[in-house]
Amino acid sequence: MTPQPNPQVGAAVKAADRAHVFHSWSAQELIDPLAVAGAEGSYFWDYDGNRYLDFTSGLVYTNIGYQHPKVVAAIQEQAATMTTFAPAFAVEARSEAARLIAERTPGDLDKIFFTNGGADAVEHATRMARLHTGRPKVLAAYRSYHGGTQQAINLTGDPRRWASDTGTAGVVHFWAPYLYRSRFYAETEQQECERALQHLEDTIVFEGPQTVAAIILETVPGTAGIMIPPPGYLAGVRALCDKYGIVFVLDEVMAGFGRTGEWFAADLFDVVPDLMTFAKGVNSGYVPLGGVAISGQIAETFAKRPYPGGLTYSGHPLACAAAVATINVMAEEGVVEHAANLGAQVIEPGLRAIAERHPSVGEVRGVGMFWALELVKDRETREPLVPYNATGEANAPMAAFGAAAKKNGLWPFINMNRTHVVPPCNVTETEAKEGLAALDAALSVADEHVR
Amino acid sequence: MTPQPNPQVGAAVKAADRAHVFHSWSAQELIDPLAVAGAEGSYFWDYDGNRYLDFTSGLVYTNIGYQHPKVVAAIQEQAATMTTFAPAFAVEARSEAARLIAERTPGDLDKIFFTNGGADAVEHATRMARLHTGRPKVLAAYRSYHGGTQQAINLTGDPRRWASDTGTAGVVHFWAPYLYRSRFYAETEQQECERALQHLEDTIVFEGPQTVAAIILETVPGTAGIMIPPPGYLAGVRALCDKYGIVFVLDEVMAGFGRTGEWFAADLFDVVPDLMTFAKGVNSGYVPLGGVAISGQIAETFAKRPYPGGLTYSGHPLACAAAVATINVMAEEGVVEHAANLGAQVIEPGLRAIAERHPSVGEVRGVGMFWALELVKDRETREPLVPYNATGEANAPMAAFGAAAKKNGLWPFINMNRTHVVPPCNVTETEAKEGLAALDAALSVADEHVR
Repeated sequence: MTPQPNPQVGAAVKAADRAHVFHSWSAQELIDPLAVAGAEGSYFWDYDGNRYLDFTSGLVYTNIGYQHPKVVAAIQEQAATMTTFAPAFAVEARSEAARLIAERTPGDLDKIFFTNGGADAVEHATRMARLHTGRPKVLAAYRSYHGGTQQAINLTGDPRRWASDTGTAGVVHFWAPYLYRSRFYAETEQQECERALQHLEDTIVFEGPQTVAAIILETVPGTAGIMIPPPGYLAGVRALCDKYGIVFVLDEVMAGFGRTGEWFAADLFDVVPDLMTFAKGVNSGYVPLGGVAISGQIAETFAKRPYPGGLTYSGHPLACAAAVATINVMAEEGVVEHAANLGAQVIEPGLRAIAERHPSVGEVRGVGMFWALELVKDRETREPLVPYNATGEANAPMAAFGAAAKKNGLWPFINMNRTHVVPPCNVTETEAKEGLAALDAALSVADEHVR
Repeated sequence: MTPQPNPQVGAAVKAADRAHVFHSWSAQELIDPLAVAGAEGSYFWDYDGNRYLDFTSGLVYTNIGYQHPKVVAAIQEQAATMTTFAPAFAVEARSEAARLIAERTPGDLDKIFFTNGGADAVEHATRMARLHTGRPKVLAAYRSYHGGTQQAINLTGDPRRWASDTGTAGVVHFWAPYLYRSRFYAETEQQECERALQHLEDTIVFEGPQTVAAIILETVPGTAGIMIPPPGYLAGVRALCDKYGIVFVLDEVMAGFGRTGEWFAADLFDVVPDLMTFAKGVNSGYVPLGGVAISGQIAETFAKRPYPGGLTYSGHPLACAAAVATINVMAEEGVVEHAANLGAQVIEPGLRAIAERHPSVGEVRGVGMFWALELVKDRETREPLVPYNATGEANAPMAAFGAAAKKNGLWPFINMNRTHVVPPCNVTETEAKEGLAALDAALSVADEHVR
């Protein structure tokens, strides 16, 4: 599974990368991208013979791991017959992917508009909501990520928005539940839920309900910290949307397709949105694909009137064939149930035991294969191990933790003062335990920064 | 090449499409998507045994035709080794695609930021320009298309923008040269050029040069009508950008990668932009891919300071492997030169002969494999065969022309009162002549609407 080291090829790959590849979210001369030689299942390896257990699933998208043979074969077969075809036509892979997705989406979200990824899914979902309601504003949460294009990044509630935010009209941010650092001064989940809903309704009322087209939420906020919404919160948002005629958009780009131990995180909460965005897990990112699942009512708006949006690769056959194979593999191999069970039986108890041993762990939260550890300087005050959006020296404790994990053969997901445990949804028990052990060891480095 | 008819499968594909696929730019119940069974080279076929010569290249993107065996094989090989990997790493297919593209881009556009398609390429190019200059506005042309996401559609200068335009700040539209319907009252290309440049400079001066981050232009406007810019125009825009410190963005999503008989249309005019967007032809759309080629000066802006943008599938290995294979195939098979030669020697004389026979043809214009026929009711007044943005009964003459072409086995590209001749860049002479003959016959239907 790990090929022989080949540092010369690695050096050439790295040199061409440094000469010609402009990387996402980076100061181009301050990064040092690892050259990766191969990947399989839950592991990847570099050209120097180092192998890493991937507790990031790439960017939380390889839900079935790398190089699943059935999905690889399906891509190869589709490539042999019809790699691509324009979006205005009916083609088998596209029809079948839409059918399989619609079969799994909650409620009557039975029409699928395909995009290339999550960002454009969010762009189109907000457009549909605005045109369906005739209202201008979209309400989005602080502590959220909705994508990198202009509309999507303006909906985002983290520092990645700032550079592109010139005071965009039509976006209003509100605060979602976050009991560990409650600003609703709540002491229980129920209080946090009630107060967050009160805050949201206040915001709607003061913005003017007749100006609010949509509320968009990650069902479970992802990169922002995997804050599982308290029982009743999403149902409460659904009720507020119904009360005020607002379109409810759930962003399941990261949370969907098995990540939470359900096909969609909405199923954890028995809530049905009007629009649901997806990407990543839909085909484990083997081919770029995203989309919007659309309710009957919103589809009806565009039954006789054209939907004013589209893209060349909408419903790309190769991407759709990968989705068909991925969904079938997940169903046949019970990947979703595996994520739920392994999460409850191995990951959660493992992380709780780790938290007991490490004073730097302030909170463990999550579900399925979607877990966050919040690292703190002090468990009492809950002061984060590093400040919000820290870089350079201020971020040194998290950087040291990350380096230690990598030294132990674990590739960790790190955002601000948190590490997320987000392995492939079909990670084995043995692999999960290996990763937890490496995490355990690396957290000793974080402990050194506890007051 | 054409398999046996299989109407039962076709009916099932169509039924699943109608039940679950939400199509781009469409009133969902008023469309009747053709179910397509297969495609190869310049042809595709349905489940009833009808075969069509594709004079649209899909949506002007299959520049090497359908199912090129070398690119199919490259996709299959990459799928077998590394279908996907996250963007923060150096991987071989990504490095090599960037190198091959940078090798061909004009000037020092040597850093490649990969996106999923053309729309997000435009989104990121405008962001780079705004951050590089610290200025808010982007100037874009009427009669243009830049993509379907919110920023890209607001830059667009055609009716697809309207539904999503709520008065977006930071976008100003100007008029580019269009001699056939000159509103600069020009009688020669030189006059049109000079006056269009004067109009652009006036617009810059009155908007305030210190507020203008970028000018974005399709090097040759595509869906808007393939108006080849007059000699000197793009060099004049370059000079205005230099004079006022404005970033010059050329959008080569449709015009790039051989379409005009050059690797990039910018090469036709010896002009070097600061940023250049691409997609479609980069890998003939076999796997979704787009990007921005970045000048040394703009890359320098993001050398020590992070570029605040990114996406999960940036530099997707499978998409990049398809680009590597496509570029190599185009180079080995001389596809770019073929497009130039066949355009000059077969397409252009063929279209000019057609125009002589058909009073409905008001103008023939284009280059390489990128041609437009403007259909008119009256060659003297140049009144379009159908009104701007016509639908339903008002659009009947163009619909009848399109139906006649399809009956003749030709799938035509139609936009408003134009038909574009945009076959694959490696279409054979025999195929091109077959298509021209079918077009010739179908234009008799358009002639019936001439006054």
